[in-house]
Amino acid sequence: MTKIITISRQFGSGGRTIGRKVAEKLGIPCYDSEIIEKISERSHFSENYIKESGEYSESFLSKVFSYRPGYTTQQDKLWLVQHEIIKELAEKESCVIVGRCADYILRDRSDCFKVFIHASMEKRAERIVKEYGERKESPEERLMDKDKRRETYYRFYTDLHFGDARNYLLTLDSGILGIDKCVELILDCVNHTEENKA
Amino acid sequence: MTKIITISRQFGSGGRTIGRKVAEKLGIPCYDSEIIEKISERSHFSENYIKESGEYSESFLSKVFSYRPGYTTQQDKLWLVQHEIIKELAEKESCVIVGRCADYILRDRSDCFKVFIHASMEKRAERIVKEYGERKESPEERLMDKDKRRETYYRFYTDLHFGDARNYLLTLDSGILGIDKCVELILDCVNHTEENKA
Repeated sequence: MTKIITISRQFGSGGRTIGRKVAEKLGIPCYDSEIIEKISERSHFSENYIKESGEYSESFLSKVFSYRPGYTTQQDKLWLVQHEIIKELAEKESCVIVGRCADYILRDRSDCFKVFIHASMEKRAERIVKEYGERKESPEERLMDKDKRRETYYRFYTDLHFGDARNYLLTLDSGILGIDKCVELILDCVNHTEENKA
Repeated sequence: MTKIITISRQFGSGGRTIGRKVAEKLGIPCYDSEIIEKISERSHFSENYIKESGEYSESFLSKVFSYRPGYTTQQDKLWLVQHEIIKELAEKESCVIVGRCADYILRDRSDCFKVFIHASMEKRAERIVKEYGERKESPEERLMDKDKRRETYYRFYTDLHFGDARNYLLTLDSGILGIDKCVELILDCVNHTEENKA
């Protein structure tokens, strides 16, 4: 039976690492930056442009506020390609998909396990400094900025609130539980749900 | 070491049953309707009045919308008593506390495990009919009404959004996972976190 696991996550919560480890344990692929590559191939925009104009760009935010119904922005076009690619990936085989609103895009599939990972500002600040090094802005400033962009993007395209527990099978605080415990709990839930279906 | 577990939940999700079972396994008390009794003893309002004027009452909602700063309503007084009682319970000994915004009231305690339980409308409708029988209104109407009141009450007194994953150690969909699996996962997280602290 196909199993699709979507991992939505706060920036710096270790969601991507958790996704990779879950996929490894299950012997299935994990899609994260690979989705950007695929969007690039299909849309002919560069990977950098997609990253920039996706969840995080200034230009996206300015477009949200100058939104005109009926008018399709480049972001809208990228959203449609992203939508198409995520649907196709989930059709093809079992996989883990990190981020990119996959939880929303695959909401109608009953074989989709939706997970959300978060952690306190303090724990995430520690993590991003360790992972990406120091920057001019404080880690807290970087996190608040990323959080705001990610939440706005999610809200705009899904009409849902980012981080609402009711959209997920389970949500976990990786700062308290640790990365490996999160991996274990996700696998436990996936296996349990499959046994009950079988 | 003291352990306090708060179970916040959507109406009909089985959160109360989960709370009782977790408490039983840990050999600690579970407070739910007992809190109403204690509020009644201390405030001299009847238990029925407290239930009515708490999360669910029409009168509470009308008071939210006629809110005047500096003016203390009976609901505000009951909130203060509830606040005091929950703080005292958590001071005294390990326990499970179901509902009553205990997650918010005890937010500053690092030994507090905060859990949120939810389920789909369909699963909750099934559950409330089985548990409380048929009523004049459809189970879906009853649920939407309760959800709205509970969310409004929570929002008014905590300034947080009901069901936001970021306020919880873990959140679980009891409709997919089942009551007993939720109990097991909560105990697993509590034990793991305690081991890591020890």
